[in-house]
Amino acid sequence: MATELTWRAKGEAKRQSILGAIPEKWIIPDIPSPEEQQDVTGAYIQQFLNRREIEITESDAVDIVAETTSGSWTALEVAEAFCHRAALAHQLVSCLHEIFFEAAIEDAKRLDAYFAEHKAPIGPLHGLPISLKDQFHVKGVETTMGYVGWINTFQGQPDDPRRGVEESELVRELRNLGAVLYCKTSVPATLMSGETVNNIIGYTWNPKNRNLSSGGSSGGEGALIALRGSPAGFGTDIGGSVRIPAGFNHLYGLRPSAGRMPYQGTANSMDGQSMIMSVIGPLAPTARTLTLLFKSVLGQQPWNHDPLALEIPWRESIVQETLSSIEQSKTGASGLAFAIMPFDGVGRIHPPIARGLKLVAQTLKRLGHKVIDWNPPSHVPAHALASKAYQLDGGTDLNHHFGLSGEVQAPQVIVAQGGTDMIASQIAALNVSKREYQKQYMDYWNSTAELTGTGRPVDGFICPLASHAAVIPTQYDHVGYTTFVNVLDYTSISIPVTFADKTVDRLPVDTPPSEAEPHIDWDYDADSYDGAPVGVQLVGRRLQEEKMLTLAQYIGEEIAKDHDVGRTLASLA
Amino acid sequence: MATELTWRAKGEAKRQSILGAIPEKWIIPDIPSPEEQQDVTGAYIQQFLNRREIEITESDAVDIVAETTSGSWTALEVAEAFCHRAALAHQLVSCLHEIFFEAAIEDAKRLDAYFAEHKAPIGPLHGLPISLKDQFHVKGVETTMGYVGWINTFQGQPDDPRRGVEESELVRELRNLGAVLYCKTSVPATLMSGETVNNIIGYTWNPKNRNLSSGGSSGGEGALIALRGSPAGFGTDIGGSVRIPAGFNHLYGLRPSAGRMPYQGTANSMDGQSMIMSVIGPLAPTARTLTLLFKSVLGQQPWNHDPLALEIPWRESIVQETLSSIEQSKTGASGLAFAIMPFDGVGRIHPPIARGLKLVAQTLKRLGHKVIDWNPPSHVPAHALASKAYQLDGGTDLNHHFGLSGEVQAPQVIVAQGGTDMIASQIAALNVSKREYQKQYMDYWNSTAELTGTGRPVDGFICPLASHAAVIPTQYDHVGYTTFVNVLDYTSISIPVTFADKTVDRLPVDTPPSEAEPHIDWDYDADSYDGAPVGVQLVGRRLQEEKMLTLAQYIGEEIAKDHDVGRTLASLA
Repeated sequence: MATELTWRAKGEAKRQSILGAIPEKWIIPDIPSPEEQQDVTGAYIQQFLNRREIEITESDAVDIVAETTSGSWTALEVAEAFCHRAALAHQLVSCLHEIFFEAAIEDAKRLDAYFAEHKAPIGPLHGLPISLKDQFHVKGVETTMGYVGWINTFQGQPDDPRRGVEESELVRELRNLGAVLYCKTSVPATLMSGETVNNIIGYTWNPKNRNLSSGGSSGGEGALIALRGSPAGFGTDIGGSVRIPAGFNHLYGLRPSAGRMPYQGTANSMDGQSMIMSVIGPLAPTARTLTLLFKSVLGQQPWNHDPLALEIPWRESIVQETLSSIEQSKTGASGLAFAIMPFDGVGRIHPPIARGLKLVAQTLKRLGHKVIDWNPPSHVPAHALASKAYQLDGGTDLNHHFGLSGEVQAPQVIVAQGGTDMIASQIAALNVSKREYQKQYMDYWNSTAELTGTGRPVDGFICPLASHAAVIPTQYDHVGYTTFVNVLDYTSISIPVTFADKTVDRLPVDTPPSEAEPHIDWDYDADSYDGAPVGVQLVGRRLQEEKMLTLAQYIGEEIAKDHDVGRTLASLA
Repeated sequence: MATELTWRAKGEAKRQSILGAIPEKWIIPDIPSPEEQQDVTGAYIQQFLNRREIEITESDAVDIVAETTSGSWTALEVAEAFCHRAALAHQLVSCLHEIFFEAAIEDAKRLDAYFAEHKAPIGPLHGLPISLKDQFHVKGVETTMGYVGWINTFQGQPDDPRRGVEESELVRELRNLGAVLYCKTSVPATLMSGETVNNIIGYTWNPKNRNLSSGGSSGGEGALIALRGSPAGFGTDIGGSVRIPAGFNHLYGLRPSAGRMPYQGTANSMDGQSMIMSVIGPLAPTARTLTLLFKSVLGQQPWNHDPLALEIPWRESIVQETLSSIEQSKTGASGLAFAIMPFDGVGRIHPPIARGLKLVAQTLKRLGHKVIDWNPPSHVPAHALASKAYQLDGGTDLNHHFGLSGEVQAPQVIVAQGGTDMIASQIAALNVSKREYQKQYMDYWNSTAELTGTGRPVDGFICPLASHAAVIPTQYDHVGYTTFVNVLDYTSISIPVTFADKTVDRLPVDTPPSEAEPHIDWDYDADSYDGAPVGVQLVGRRLQEEKMLTLAQYIGEEIAKDHDVGRTLASLA
């Protein structure tokens, strides 16, 4: 009991200190309850901002850097606007772990001075604020990763000399590129959850529907960017942790293959587990911003600074090939081919997700692309392999970190404590199983060359990100829609499509639904999910980031033309 | 005792069946003892061949394919010549596990028919015989990997449906490229040894000195190619198994970084151990042949067929950049910079190796390149990490495979049986230690930019492959000169330099040797090692194969100009 009081008090003190870092002038005096104000995006949050702040924060990052790298906008005014909006966002949905606005302002001033002196930007991200999931170490800023036991320590170790001085490799590169760092975003303690909850900041709510989750584990990123408290940020993904919060917040999110983004010097759960590697990926409201961030980081040659990063620079030739295929399709030729997989055989999907997939199929067909069914090797072994990979150490690592403070583990964590470590022979056998599964899937993918009419296998396939559009707390049962991608180490991008609509996503009247569409879970609560963002996942082969980013931008823009004109990006912000 | 009789008899029967696959006409009636004929290369083996066979088999693979892809030489005559010479080689040094000359002759005839019909080769390796370490599966051919218990099975399993029909991905690609497969070469059972010995073929001797080892674990490849029973072949390397036999046989051997060559469908020890991945690499008498093989295989896009292969095609631009640096150095500008590390702090080196390193330094300096000392993070932790990685399962896998027949393990195997499996948490901690070591080494490498004068860090460094030039059986104590490369996942190429010479490599007369050169092991037997090949290792950063192949060819050719004119390649064969 004493312990509980202690960790609760420590968590609460940290929570207060985060709020305390918000300047008085930016405090919202009276936060409405979710019942009073379910959706805090758009007009709601705009009321606290002036017109200039709205203009800046609702600009896409690509447009922001066009202004800041040409000297039209100062880094300072951009940083101040995003600091303000991030402060508002945190008060509304609890999405930040660290606030360091003053350091950001100093950095922005330095960038402006640099520009004044050199008449040139310091790099392609000159003056762009970037938010970071609370796994990245930033000099002078704490990293708790949601653990109470990490408060006032370096990754749980009070006396570690890296405390307060360490910077993650990605952070070093972002500074070189001219980015302005100003906040770190919330995560579920352990990172192993599709929701974001911990004993410090509590629960990170979905800005579109504050009774639902913002997703996880990069849930703070998802919520903050949805509210335009950040133009773009970086999360990590070991089982869907970039794609889920992107999908739950009407954003794009990239899960690159392992080795493209530098993970060096970043805090992690179960560090050293190498069966399924966590990877870093960007989240943003547009695919072109994902490209800007991904390409800029590669320009820093992370492979010379991170031993696990691969020497694969940005391959513009792949972009050009992909654009050629797109152009070709406009002439009536079969330019691209896609597959759609609405059901993985395990997780029945809610009607809004089913509708979202149909909307994507309609758009692809309108564009003249071949769309085939996706009948791959069963995803069941993939999901089982992922679950085992996450449990290799039987929860030893998580247990240790929860044990530092004695705090309790949230029920949403998908790794059980109290198991036993697997032994080397078992791990090796699992690695072989994984490789054999990857090979089967690869062979299946190759085999589609006979079905596409393009002379190639499918260029990508589309499937759900989850059974649901966002999720009711504690009801995220099946993460298999995202984890199979991690098992395969494929490239995958979340693409926003539409929003759940209780007036549309309803039980069919005529046909018994179990007959009509047995893969659909009609037993969902249309009212609860109303307004929640519906995203899908565009999955490409391993190390196909250039191609998939190009396709995601193309497909996403075409979907936006076809659907939800009134509820897209602009209205979200 | 019954068991011992059984496995000895089984091994002996297999040994006889290998010899029995040699056509009667190619049997050497009277094999001399090592005392009678220490060196069986050059004139000795030539006596059994006609002039045309010698011409073909002593041509470099690059020249062979020039003839076969243009129709000047038939695939058949080339295949027959190498089958003959391989048969001789095996009788002299015991280097083959499988002989399938008839299948090779049929394949060669098919290639000739293809050429006759299409007036074009089937691929860049059209008609080139390639030898394969006995880990690769070839349709209709057994794979024992040196285990008696694998005879008449597929990887130890009698009823596995893959038995007799499976082909490794590399084999499939080599066939696509037009290569002719005709034999598989000897390995130490377990593959975990710097010598090649097993209970089937016995011991694979060094063709230059039949009292010494041919190295391991790709020892059969090294011996066969040294005797020109093969123009080139593929081995594997988890701790030096390509580089050691290359160095011990005056050959070039490439250890690429993991992911470049397709390992899919290849037999292995401790399959699924992922801390240090075994990789496939070519061995050949010239660096340009390594390039031919490496580049040809990449042309098959292995990443579309092997889930662990990386999509990094052959990067000709890196070759061109490297050649530019070489050209630049000819103008007197500082084109390239190298480091030399003669001693890893653990394994004192024999005088022939010390002399070899000095010869390389002389050549590099003559060429005008900067040569600095290499003072990296201690190699001791690297060697310790490698040893632990090889022991992760406590010998479980090896134990199982030896247990299939009850055979005894050779003392040269560096993995002890009877240990215990490490647990997941320990493995994860080791992975973290490995990554941290890699990062330290990377930072050190980067730091040399300040010393080179080229504006870049060193382009590569040179160090021993082993303490000795080849090795006296059971005296291979320290494999750390090669294993550190596997820990770092660096690119490394064996380069032949000279030969041990008992008249030169002697104790200095004037100075007490311990004072003069404390890293040199003067307590070696100059007579025993006389004539043994001296190779060194050119080490490059991770995934730098194009650069290192280009540099190895350049440096190797320049060394050959400076030294050992009378004892180089031509005289070896």
